[in-house]
Amino acid sequence: MPVTEFELIESFFLRPEVHHKQTRIGIGDDCALISPNGDLDLAITTDTLVEGTHFFPDSEPEALGHKALAVSLSDLAAVGAEPKWALLALTLPVTQRSWLEKFAEGFFVLARKHSVELIGGDTTKGGLAITVQAIGLKPKSDELLRSNAKVGDKIYVTGTLGDAGLALATASHHGEVANLHLAARLHRPTPRIEMGLCLRGLAHACIDISDGLVADLAHILRASGVGATIHCQHLPLSDPLLRYIDRTNDYKIPLCAGDDYELCFTIAEHNLRALARRVEFIDCAYTCIGEIESTNGLRVLGYENDEILKGYEHFS
Amino acid sequence: MPVTEFELIESFFLRPEVHHKQTRIGIGDDCALISPNGDLDLAITTDTLVEGTHFFPDSEPEALGHKALAVSLSDLAAVGAEPKWALLALTLPVTQRSWLEKFAEGFFVLARKHSVELIGGDTTKGGLAITVQAIGLKPKSDELLRSNAKVGDKIYVTGTLGDAGLALATASHHGEVANLHLAARLHRPTPRIEMGLCLRGLAHACIDISDGLVADLAHILRASGVGATIHCQHLPLSDPLLRYIDRTNDYKIPLCAGDDYELCFTIAEHNLRALARRVEFIDCAYTCIGEIESTNGLRVLGYENDEILKGYEHFS
Repeated sequence: MPVTEFELIESFFLRPEVHHKQTRIGIGDDCALISPNGDLDLAITTDTLVEGTHFFPDSEPEALGHKALAVSLSDLAAVGAEPKWALLALTLPVTQRSWLEKFAEGFFVLARKHSVELIGGDTTKGGLAITVQAIGLKPKSDELLRSNAKVGDKIYVTGTLGDAGLALATASHHGEVANLHLAARLHRPTPRIEMGLCLRGLAHACIDISDGLVADLAHILRASGVGATIHCQHLPLSDPLLRYIDRTNDYKIPLCAGDDYELCFTIAEHNLRALARRVEFIDCAYTCIGEIESTNGLRVLGYENDEILKGYEHFS
Repeated sequence: MPVTEFELIESFFLRPEVHHKQTRIGIGDDCALISPNGDLDLAITTDTLVEGTHFFPDSEPEALGHKALAVSLSDLAAVGAEPKWALLALTLPVTQRSWLEKFAEGFFVLARKHSVELIGGDTTKGGLAITVQAIGLKPKSDELLRSNAKVGDKIYVTGTLGDAGLALATASHHGEVANLHLAARLHRPTPRIEMGLCLRGLAHACIDISDGLVADLAHILRASGVGATIHCQHLPLSDPLLRYIDRTNDYKIPLCAGDDYELCFTIAEHNLRALARRVEFIDCAYTCIGEIESTNGLRVLGYENDEILKGYEHFS
């Protein structure tokens, strides 16, 4: 029996587990109502995942629920915001109880982890697509914006680069990825929320690497009116990536492939020690890959390929 | 030549026309940042329109741009919020300059009218679908919520009912609607923003009629723990609807068809005069169609058809 919209919301998406005191009305009215504290800014972002474009048909629904929320939380991490609320616009060809249960499970496990309250959404019929809006709170300041990189800053990235890209490059027609580490990195990205919070007051510019390092770092350079040099030999790589590079000497994947959802940030050298003290308490590696310079443009040392500087564009 | 995502945003969606002082960062970073005033609540809503479900293939892009924003603004109207910001998640099979220009035109004409600032979004590739998130501000109070109807309240609706439904019922296979009034009501609904503001402090409960009068009034009744009687002969109908009812005596369309985006509200009789004084200044008709009662359930007088009480469900 098909699930009605009312039942769908009641059965799968009304979860009392997380409730913030600022939420006056959550799911169930024309709008959600929140009472923000006037001392903080709201950070708001939206991302869509479309079947066939961002994930393979018949993808594991639990992983989709996780990833749909993770990619929006990653944007909050990039501005140092603390996640608070989400809205979920879900477009489905049919409503299958088992699919919805697993999707909701993936969504809410991550939501609970970061105390995200689902306060609204929409369910519609059509090709499978998921749009999540995430809302977080952050102190009123311009830190961590793309436009805030300073000449002399060191450029860092969290985690490792290119895992999702190599997963995609080695996936079968049906999307199966043999290497479990790579599959997890593609299907269950980790939004670097805690790292975003550690960067508050210390880092200058920050962005999440959703479109690939080169394209996303280029956003920082353009917005800040600066240039940079990065060193291929310093890129943090997982074992499968190291083996791939050993074999091919092709840095295109860690430089340009999207979907990693790591953070790229710039920070003055004198703040590195303070950052290290904070990061001790969370599980997040970060690696210096280059430096911000006054000469415009991005220089990539250790890899000869002009192609990469074109970055990645959704519609190209 | 295809349009890149960067160019798409720059060319079509970066509009400086509306800028609110509370907007710290609009389009162009990982998140939009807004600095809300602590004295007001934020009202947040999201709606998706999917090709083939909510509109015909090859629909006029200007009308789609209008309607995608209008349906979200209608939710803000229903809680008496003043629109401020929107995010647009646009999924497109291809990027055509002429289509985008017209879509953006439809979106921004309505956005300007209601001082809505576009502060973010996402563009993805896939079947045509549009998700708009709208954010408004309203005083901190429980007025106009679905749960706030009181026994003895009069039930009112704005505008006329069933026009969009009759447009759909009489549309050709390609979606052409011969009657221009009905076509306009379907494709370019008017969000009742000014009326929502007039209802502040006067009306008890309010909802926008997107799923049909019966289904949406039922939401108010359930949430408020009350019942109601409505009178078919009192339903406000346009000339084409009157002719249709004369011919068929079939009230199903004005009672149950969705997509009207009128407001249904309940109000104590002693507030009617104050409301009339406010509404003088805006162009919005409103008609009493019944009253809230203590006996649960919805009674529809003047039309014998139990089917209608089942309302409308997206996935049925």
